[in-house]
Amino acid sequence: MSSDPKASQAQMEKIVSLCKRRGFIYQSSEIYGGINGFWDYGPLGAELKRNLRTAWWNTMMRDREDVVGLDASIIMHPAIWKASGHVDTFSDPMSTCKSCKKLVRSDQVWSMLAEQRWVQSLAEVADVPTQSFDGPALLRWAERKGKDLAPNLALVRNPQVTLSWLAERSAGSKDNPLSAQEFYQYIATEQKAATGLITPCPHCGGELTEPRPFNLMFDSHAGPVKSDDNIVYLRPETAQAIFVQFKNVFDSSRVKVPFGIGQIGKAFRNEITPRNYTFRSREFEQMELEFFIRPDEVIRLIYGEVAQWHEGADLAEPQPNWGWELWHRYWVDQRTKFYAAIGLGKDVLDYYWQSKDELAHYATATVDILFKFPFGTEELEGIAARGDFDLTQHQKHSGKSLEVFDEELREAVKQLTDEQKKTFIAEVQEEWNDRNKSREDAAIFCDKLLSKASYLPHVIEPSAGLDRLALAILTNAFCEEEKADVNGKVETRTFLRFHPRVAPIKVGVFPLLKNKPELVAKAREVYDMLKKHLNCFYDESAAIGRRYARQDEVGTPFGVTIDFDSLGEKGPELLDTVTLRHRDSNEQERVKISELLGKLLPLVS
Amino acid sequence: MSSDPKASQAQMEKIVSLCKRRGFIYQSSEIYGGINGFWDYGPLGAELKRNLRTAWWNTMMRDREDVVGLDASIIMHPAIWKASGHVDTFSDPMSTCKSCKKLVRSDQVWSMLAEQRWVQSLAEVADVPTQSFDGPALLRWAERKGKDLAPNLALVRNPQVTLSWLAERSAGSKDNPLSAQEFYQYIATEQKAATGLITPCPHCGGELTEPRPFNLMFDSHAGPVKSDDNIVYLRPETAQAIFVQFKNVFDSSRVKVPFGIGQIGKAFRNEITPRNYTFRSREFEQMELEFFIRPDEVIRLIYGEVAQWHEGADLAEPQPNWGWELWHRYWVDQRTKFYAAIGLGKDVLDYYWQSKDELAHYATATVDILFKFPFGTEELEGIAARGDFDLTQHQKHSGKSLEVFDEELREAVKQLTDEQKKTFIAEVQEEWNDRNKSREDAAIFCDKLLSKASYLPHVIEPSAGLDRLALAILTNAFCEEEKADVNGKVETRTFLRFHPRVAPIKVGVFPLLKNKPELVAKAREVYDMLKKHLNCFYDESAAIGRRYARQDEVGTPFGVTIDFDSLGEKGPELLDTVTLRHRDSNEQERVKISELLGKLLPLVS
Repeated sequence: MSSDPKASQAQMEKIVSLCKRRGFIYQSSEIYGGINGFWDYGPLGAELKRNLRTAWWNTMMRDREDVVGLDASIIMHPAIWKASGHVDTFSDPMSTCKSCKKLVRSDQVWSMLAEQRWVQSLAEVADVPTQSFDGPALLRWAERKGKDLAPNLALVRNPQVTLSWLAERSAGSKDNPLSAQEFYQYIATEQKAATGLITPCPHCGGELTEPRPFNLMFDSHAGPVKSDDNIVYLRPETAQAIFVQFKNVFDSSRVKVPFGIGQIGKAFRNEITPRNYTFRSREFEQMELEFFIRPDEVIRLIYGEVAQWHEGADLAEPQPNWGWELWHRYWVDQRTKFYAAIGLGKDVLDYYWQSKDELAHYATATVDILFKFPFGTEELEGIAARGDFDLTQHQKHSGKSLEVFDEELREAVKQLTDEQKKTFIAEVQEEWNDRNKSREDAAIFCDKLLSKASYLPHVIEPSAGLDRLALAILTNAFCEEEKADVNGKVETRTFLRFHPRVAPIKVGVFPLLKNKPELVAKAREVYDMLKKHLNCFYDESAAIGRRYARQDEVGTPFGVTIDFDSLGEKGPELLDTVTLRHRDSNEQERVKISELLGKLLPLVS
Repeated sequence: MSSDPKASQAQMEKIVSLCKRRGFIYQSSEIYGGINGFWDYGPLGAELKRNLRTAWWNTMMRDREDVVGLDASIIMHPAIWKASGHVDTFSDPMSTCKSCKKLVRSDQVWSMLAEQRWVQSLAEVADVPTQSFDGPALLRWAERKGKDLAPNLALVRNPQVTLSWLAERSAGSKDNPLSAQEFYQYIATEQKAATGLITPCPHCGGELTEPRPFNLMFDSHAGPVKSDDNIVYLRPETAQAIFVQFKNVFDSSRVKVPFGIGQIGKAFRNEITPRNYTFRSREFEQMELEFFIRPDEVIRLIYGEVAQWHEGADLAEPQPNWGWELWHRYWVDQRTKFYAAIGLGKDVLDYYWQSKDELAHYATATVDILFKFPFGTEELEGIAARGDFDLTQHQKHSGKSLEVFDEELREAVKQLTDEQKKTFIAEVQEEWNDRNKSREDAAIFCDKLLSKASYLPHVIEPSAGLDRLALAILTNAFCEEEKADVNGKVETRTFLRFHPRVAPIKVGVFPLLKNKPELVAKAREVYDMLKKHLNCFYDESAAIGRRYARQDEVGTPFGVTIDFDSLGEKGPELLDTVTLRHRDSNEQERVKISELLGKLLPLVS
């Protein structure tokens, strides 16, 4: 988590190298030169991901009574993506370089420029922040380095013209100094294009086309004919399947609002520029919960008023009179506890509450839970209050009612006088009007509540990325410790401080020596006993210190060593005891074999 | 498993209905009219699949020391599918109807015809097996039913011509009787097409085009430009990722041959006609193991000879001198034990050993493990001995060596005299020659063994389908039992006899009455205690018999009822005991609450 970019990069390189060397993560299709934006998880990575999936599933489902699971297909009916808005608006702005033909994400051009060698070497010549230009130096740059690194830059193709023009512009710079951005635009621009500045291509300095939207969904065709009629999309998120199957789940699962539907599965986004290792890839896995709640208006009808959130509010146990805001805060709290329980405490997390201007038009609140990656503080999970936007869209586009009937609402409405109903309708109309929603819609909504006791539930959506979580766990666990050996030689001990719950291997089992059959036999006994319940690794080769180091490097939290004491050679009181070593502290304790499982199981689950 | 097609169909309809009603399986995108060949798993289906995945993963990996996992991307480098042969040959023959434009899988036309209403109604008029044609009846059929059901059949469009032609052909039928196939071809053919018979379209009787190959891989494009250069495929099987990452896993996991790599994941095949519920769908999940073994020649060099398989051979513990045949038999045996352990015994399985003619050119043996589905006995898993075909292909196409070095082989070779080496080479050349493999290739192979102790491992591949396994488990569990109630009224009890290991819910917890706070409190206590370890369902609504029935229908193996005895009302000896009910036998026993978990846990894991 260094703030020094070079140190961060060096740390990422070490992590990437360890991940490949020890079988956590490989580049997809590596022997064929790889494929940009796709990653494979090796033996330990696959176990790590399994543990994270299990932790999420058990926390969100098995340990609760109000959430059920779903496992939907990746390819769904294309009309779903029309209804959700993805077909029309799920796109990034893309530009093409007119010279080198490379594609760039238009909104990333400036951050990409900062990473380019030609910009860095140009910055050494021209001190951009102070706009102190050394004409001859720029000329030399254009004729030497520039020709290699940014051959399509105007400064390179036509240095004299560009330089004199730049001199003219910067002559009046005291009152109107050039920004770094303007500087790069100037040196990229030929005089003939003086009507407008252009953004230089990060790769070659050439001219970029105007941005155009590029849809991020992978498409294909279902069935043997390729036509527009049977285009299908690989889902860009797992959430929509939950909305589309909401009514089926509601009807078949004996649940009632509030309740949630959770799903883990792959999703695909055709990123223009995948980056930051596995963080932004084209194929990834999501863990999404859609938690369906009563609209605030229903809470008011049943309980008179909606409980208000305030700083320090008790979020431990959901209450029936909670509205969307308390439910939203509750899920932020729950998810924070989840991360703490797998080793990501508040010290490595951050929270970003979107401002009103940033919110999607349907959302009432969104908070991003961020993690401090070496390459920057980036989103791990988004928790959005989405109102009834998604169910409304699918109800409209499918023509099928997705409304639920609420017995308690019906009972509450029965108690109301006509006058009270009228007041309620007027209030709701007023409130909706204040939020730029139509009074007519409010009247229809109220009528459904009052006459049919039915409505579309609202949604709180905690949506986490499994691959980014795995990467957060890996980078958070990575640790280097220098220590002197018995001869005073300083060695670096590399280890992964995985929380025991998520560690791929829980226990290493080691006979002290491999050429003593009694030690090996007892070690095998211990191993066979433990492995029925825990993922264990048996290792008898090399010196015991070397074996500890190998397990440290893959984050195994516990080591069990069977030595001569275990055989009773120092007396019967140590017979059938073993050394239990703790990875992080390097501390060792003596434990009875019969008590090992009872001691270890609670620590890893 | 009735052999009566109508009874089988009725049973499938009941299963499909139960699956939807209770949240096992829904049609994907159902509110949008569905999408052919895609299915979603509801809350109970998702749990069932999770349990099956865990059973496979634990059996194949955690309980063994010689198999590790992998979790690779669905989209991989397209060159992989060229090397594997999928780009060129992974296709089904497809025909188009020239009249109705529908597409049919050419090799399924005759089985599809048998299911069509028009063929069935025609068969009632013309007794096809005995070729007894009633001309006037055929004419009436053509003018009435035929017009509706098969409007493009020659017999319908031009009945007189077709009939007289048919009469002519069948006049000489004593020596050369028409087959049913010929009959249908005749009635589909107009006289003007007399040069050749045509196959009728199953849908409308029209003329089908010649079959052409249709590649079953879904394709898409990675990156923002759609060109032939960046076509990608959704993997049609998970196996290839294992071969492609074989060397990375080998280098990073401290394994040595023999060892296996297992993977669970989605795969996609663009089936022309998805069928049989979830059995043949376009998106499905596979559980594949590639088990890498030494070539038989290496075994001979190390151990002198290869152990031979014979009827009754001991397959319990792998031996170092096993060749591919014993390893293949071993995996058939292991997989059979796996199925038995989740409730699919030998009575519902069948084995199909492919004959030499049927084997793929690279395979030395393939056995299909079949399950008796209501719609027929169909493949659940294929176990193939694939030699070194896949690694050879990827080594050739990627240009990267995938060979492994074998320390024990090097030691064995050191002991050989030059004479013995020569004899070995000559023997291997002879054997390869007998199997139509070149002597030159044999010499190269031997040279690598003898001078570098390196080779490409051979492969045994047990490849199972998760969705078909889930369907097998569901159809096998489905059970209807008639029983008379106390008044003698016969009722049908529907229940799912899931093996407790795979049942989505393990225990139902019921207070006898919901309006007795002491019963409810104790029931909640029991529920909270159990649910930390098991998937439980708490239910207090409706009569206890109704609650039992609801859990029976979703296959919950155990029910725990808290009654007044549990509160000690019949005396202290029953205090804190509960009724434990067993689903299949309907038997009940009295168990102490403190002993519940110890009794249930071993039964469900």
